[in-house]
Amino acid sequence: MNPLRFKILVEYDGTDYHGWQLQKSDQTVQGELESVLERILQVHTRVHGAGRTDAGVHAKGQVAHFDAYWQHSPEKLIRALNSLLPENVAVHKIDIVPQNFHSRHSAKTKTYTYTILNSPLRSPLFSRYSWHVPAPLAVSLMNDASQCLVGVHDFAAFGQATDGTPSTEREILSCHWTIDHSSLLKVTIRGTGFLRYMVRTIVGTVTRIGLGKSTLNGLISILESRDKNRSGPTAPARGLCLTEVEYPDLIDTFPNGS
Amino acid sequence: MNPLRFKILVEYDGTDYHGWQLQKSDQTVQGELESVLERILQVHTRVHGAGRTDAGVHAKGQVAHFDAYWQHSPEKLIRALNSLLPENVAVHKIDIVPQNFHSRHSAKTKTYTYTILNSPLRSPLFSRYSWHVPAPLAVSLMNDASQCLVGVHDFAAFGQATDGTPSTEREILSCHWTIDHSSLLKVTIRGTGFLRYMVRTIVGTVTRIGLGKSTLNGLISILESRDKNRSGPTAPARGLCLTEVEYPDLIDTFPNGS
Repeated sequence: MNPLRFKILVEYDGTDYHGWQLQKSDQTVQGELESVLERILQVHTRVHGAGRTDAGVHAKGQVAHFDAYWQHSPEKLIRALNSLLPENVAVHKIDIVPQNFHSRHSAKTKTYTYTILNSPLRSPLFSRYSWHVPAPLAVSLMNDASQCLVGVHDFAAFGQATDGTPSTEREILSCHWTIDHSSLLKVTIRGTGFLRYMVRTIVGTVTRIGLGKSTLNGLISILESRDKNRSGPTAPARGLCLTEVEYPDLIDTFPNGS
Repeated sequence: MNPLRFKILVEYDGTDYHGWQLQKSDQTVQGELESVLERILQVHTRVHGAGRTDAGVHAKGQVAHFDAYWQHSPEKLIRALNSLLPENVAVHKIDIVPQNFHSRHSAKTKTYTYTILNSPLRSPLFSRYSWHVPAPLAVSLMNDASQCLVGVHDFAAFGQATDGTPSTEREILSCHWTIDHSSLLKVTIRGTGFLRYMVRTIVGTVTRIGLGKSTLNGLISILESRDKNRSGPTAPARGLCLTEVEYPDLIDTFPNGS
């Protein structure tokens, strides 16, 4: 009998984690999941995540997969996982997927949101999930400027390649800034792939436009320079959340998945 | 020269505090504010809060007052406070008020909100500020039933008197339940005064109606019994937030307040 491949949808508060990816000594989300799976399955089980979120970054829709011998229902596995996982990690969905499904390699798009609290004074009830920018931001300028990033570009000025290939070319499908009544600015960025620190560096760079310290032309010039030294600051991890990972329909789930 | 009386608006994440009120050994919000004020003013300064929120309860609009000799602007005091206070406490407004203003005694109404995450699975990104109730809740039943609590009643079944008087009569001005798209149920309760644990015990009791375990008549019967043993469980502190304290216009602020 072969093991089954499970796809899981994971939500976490990244504040107390040194990111997704397993590390020798520091607590990571992958490490937490593997340790709980080992308790349930009585065998060490490697968990592969779609996005290697950095320390302090949150996820509403991280996807991961693992192989396991499990004779009960996926629902029973989800209950076992959630009862053993700490409060800051939860599994929201489990599907049985084909053996050729890979959380990272099969991913078609990823969507991140970044939240800025744009108010004169900081706010303890929002500080865990947002970056506090006290000076007023011109959101429409930021939104307009961000559109020059949509499409296939060399994003070398905005991040580092991490997946073994030296290419820093990536594709952004959409990038929209919105503001709600309580001074919360949110940008939603959807793309086929991202460099390390790319979303946070885009946010830090575009925020300079909102502050009147840079312009659309400045952003185009930074993008074309491919020079990491020319982009704005990398915005803090706490504002970032991996919200969705999409896959092609055919390999998404077997009909017998939950 | 007499000291000035300052009224402050305070926001805090109560998770790591043993409530508002000063305690000998445990960390409290009042203690935090007094210790920071002592650093700024170089003299011990007693801070009086409008509501003695319990351990783990949050505040968006706590009000407090203190007397101080301060020769600079209120804006300068707010900046000094927020730069020294920890990330989980912030002061949002400072006004100079008449000497007869008292944050608790002058308060006309208080408003609390309580948040329930009503979804089958728990959610790490909401767990800090909500109570997770997995079974579906009938919100309209809860809303209808809550209306019998509006008005002046003896709320002995729902809490304890703490202000030195034995009376457990209090007045609720309004009580509304709403639900948003992400399974968050919020109740907003406004009243002229509250017993200790009153909001959380109302929430725990009314939630039993939403679960189909009790009815409007059951709630009326509990209210009339004045028996603490008959009310539902006290809902967890994490879902509760003191959102507003209102004062009569006349004593609210001097025109020279910020």
